[in-house]
Amino acid sequence: MNFQVDQTDRLTSARRGTLKTAHGTIETPAFMPVGTLGPVKGLDPRELDELGFRLMLNNAYHLYLRPGHKVIAELGGLHRFTGWPGAILTDSGGFQMFSLARLCRVTDDGVSFQSHLDGSAHFITPETAIEIQEALGADIIMAFDQCVALPAETEAVRDAVRRTALWAARCQSSRRRADQALFGIVQGGLEAELRVASARELVGLQFDGYAVGGLSVGESKADMYRMLDVTTPELPAKKPRYLMGVGMPENLLEAVTRGIDLFDCVVPSRHGRTGWLFTTFGRVLIKQARYQRDESPVDPACGCMVCARYSRAYLHHLYHVKEMLASRLNTIHNLWYFSDFMRRMRLAIGEGDFSAFRDAFYRQRREQAVSEACEEDWREA
Amino acid sequence: MNFQVDQTDRLTSARRGTLKTAHGTIETPAFMPVGTLGPVKGLDPRELDELGFRLMLNNAYHLYLRPGHKVIAELGGLHRFTGWPGAILTDSGGFQMFSLARLCRVTDDGVSFQSHLDGSAHFITPETAIEIQEALGADIIMAFDQCVALPAETEAVRDAVRRTALWAARCQSSRRRADQALFGIVQGGLEAELRVASARELVGLQFDGYAVGGLSVGESKADMYRMLDVTTPELPAKKPRYLMGVGMPENLLEAVTRGIDLFDCVVPSRHGRTGWLFTTFGRVLIKQARYQRDESPVDPACGCMVCARYSRAYLHHLYHVKEMLASRLNTIHNLWYFSDFMRRMRLAIGEGDFSAFRDAFYRQRREQAVSEACEEDWREA
Repeated sequence: MNFQVDQTDRLTSARRGTLKTAHGTIETPAFMPVGTLGPVKGLDPRELDELGFRLMLNNAYHLYLRPGHKVIAELGGLHRFTGWPGAILTDSGGFQMFSLARLCRVTDDGVSFQSHLDGSAHFITPETAIEIQEALGADIIMAFDQCVALPAETEAVRDAVRRTALWAARCQSSRRRADQALFGIVQGGLEAELRVASARELVGLQFDGYAVGGLSVGESKADMYRMLDVTTPELPAKKPRYLMGVGMPENLLEAVTRGIDLFDCVVPSRHGRTGWLFTTFGRVLIKQARYQRDESPVDPACGCMVCARYSRAYLHHLYHVKEMLASRLNTIHNLWYFSDFMRRMRLAIGEGDFSAFRDAFYRQRREQAVSEACEEDWREA
Repeated sequence: MNFQVDQTDRLTSARRGTLKTAHGTIETPAFMPVGTLGPVKGLDPRELDELGFRLMLNNAYHLYLRPGHKVIAELGGLHRFTGWPGAILTDSGGFQMFSLARLCRVTDDGVSFQSHLDGSAHFITPETAIEIQEALGADIIMAFDQCVALPAETEAVRDAVRRTALWAARCQSSRRRADQALFGIVQGGLEAELRVASARELVGLQFDGYAVGGLSVGESKADMYRMLDVTTPELPAKKPRYLMGVGMPENLLEAVTRGIDLFDCVVPSRHGRTGWLFTTFGRVLIKQARYQRDESPVDPACGCMVCARYSRAYLHHLYHVKEMLASRLNTIHNLWYFSDFMRRMRLAIGEGDFSAFRDAFYRQRREQAVSEACEEDWREA
C-alpha cells in the first residue's frame, strides 16, 4: 500500500490524497461501505463499483464465525470469494466482540466471548486477530484494540489505552504477510490526555496508517470533534487516517475538516433499509403517506440510478409491501449520496477552499430547515 | 398487439412465433417472470432485460390491494410506475382470490372475498376486473375466470366452465381500451369434454389470445398433458396460447410440444429463494454442506452472470447467513436457466426438429439420474 497526500487545505486540516493498493487506487477522503457478511446487504460488486467505491470494509468477526477465515483462505481469500475486485479493509473484530457477542471478558491475553449466533465459546488474542485477517486477505488490516463503551470511568479508559498499546505491539510483531497494510487504532475515550498518549504510543510502533477508534459510540458530536481536534495532530501527516464507524454526513464533513482520510459506517445501508433516504435537502422518510402519489425522484439533484429511474411513489410502494428491492434501491441511493458527498469534498479541497464548502453545507441545512418548516405548515393547513 | 406464427415443427405441435407489442417484440415460446408486487422479488428491470426477458407478468390482485390500481393509473400505469420498459401481462386476479384471499364466495355476479392482508371486504366482477387491468395498463390483460381447485366434482367444474364463459363475454363487452390485448381463459378441470366445450365457447368470443387455466393446481403431469392434448387443437392457430402458472422445465417442454406459446410461473424465483438452483444436469440445493468449499460455478455450462462471477461456496455462504443477495443471485441464475431453456426450444423449433431436442432432454435427465446416483453412492461410501 502506498499513500500520498496530494493537497492540503489552506484554512483547515482537510487534505486530499491517493491510496494505492494491489486492488486499485482510492482517492481520499473516502467512505467505505460495509459488507458485514461479504456483500453490502443486497448489493453486488458491480453496483458498488458503479457507485464509485474502490474500497470497502468487511467484518472479521462475522466472517470468522461464518463461513470461517480458514474456509475463505482455502477459497483464495475475500476478493475471490466475494467477487469484489476493488480494495478491502477488514476490521479486527474487536468492536463486535464488545458490542455484539455475549459474555465478553477481556484480559491482557485477549478476549473471550460467546458467539451471538450459537453461544459457542471463542478466545481471540492480538495474534489470532492478525492470523484471521491474514487468512481473509484484505488489503488493509486493523490492529486488535479494546474499545470502551461510553460513558466510562477514567481508570477503565486508561486501562484500555494501555492494553490497546500492548496489543498493538503484539499485532505488529505477529504479522506474517508483507502485502497487507496494518493500521493501529487510537483509543482514549473522551479524555484528551489519554487520546494523545494513545496516539503517541501507536505512532511509536510505526503502523502503515492510523485509525481513531472508540468514537461514535453514543457521545455528543462536540465530544467527537474535540477528540479529533487533539488526536489527528498527533498522527503522522504522511500516513492515512481513518475514523472508524463514522457516520452521518455532518460528521464526515467535520472529520475531513480535521484531517481524516477514511471512514466506514453502516448508516447508508442500514438507514436505507428503514426507508431513510439522504438528499441534498435533508432526509426523506419514504414511508410517509405524502410520497404515495409523488412522481418526482427522491432527490431531483441526485445523479444515482435510482433517482434516474424511479419515483418516490414507487419507492414508497416497495417499502410498504416489504419488497426486497426496496432495501436494495434505498441502499444504492444512500451510498450514492455518500460517494458523491466525498467526491464533492475532494473537489472542494482540490479547489483550495474547503471552508467555503463547509459553510455552504451548513447554509443549505439552515435554509432547508426553514423551508421544511414552511412546507410542514402548509401541509398541515 | 400482433402475433405471427413463424414456423411450425414437423412432427409435433410446437411452434415458433413473434408477438409484437407497443413495448417490444417477444419471440415465442416465451416464459414470463412474475413480478408479484411490481418487481420480480429483489430484481430490477435492468437485470430482467439482461436475462433476455421482454415480457413479464404482474399480479392484478396484489397491485389492486397495494398500492391500488387508481394510484398506479394516476402515476402513468405499470410501465412507468415500475420502470420496466418491456411488455407486461396482468392476470385478472381471480386465481389469487380463490387461492390466497379469505372467505371467497362466487356467484354469477362476481367474487366477494376478504383481503389476505387486512381482512377488508372486496367484490370483484368481470367488469371491475377489466377496469382494474385497464387502469394498470398492461399490454395484455386477462379475462376474469373461475378456477376450480382440483380434485373437483364434475358438476362444480361444469358450473365454473359455464360461469367462465359468461364472465368472458362480459369482459369482452366491458373493455374500453383498444390498445390492450385481451385473452380468454379456458377452464374445465381434468375433463376433456368440458375443456373442449370451454375452449369452443371462448373461441366464439374472439379473443386476442387464449390461455389454458386451472392447471398446475396439484394434478399429475399426465393429467396436465392430457388436458393440453385436447385443448390446444381447439384454439385458433393464429392466436397466441398461454399456459398459466406453469411450470417446471419438463412441463414447459411438454407444453411447447403441444403448441403452447407463453408461460408464467414463480418457480424460478420462489425456488431460488429456497436455494434450489436449476442446472443443465439437474437441481443443485445450494444449502447442502457439500458446496461449502466448492469453488466451481453452480453450472459450468451456464452463461449467466452468477455462474460467471461466483462460486457455489459463496452462494452457499450467502444462503446460510440469510443475505438478501442470496435470493437475488439465485433468482437471477434460475431465470437465466428458464430464459435460456426457452431460447434453446425456439432454436430447436427453428431447426425443424423439436422431437430431437425433446429426446435429448430426457436422455440427459436419465444419464444425470444415473451419474447422480453413482455420486451419491460414492459420497456415502
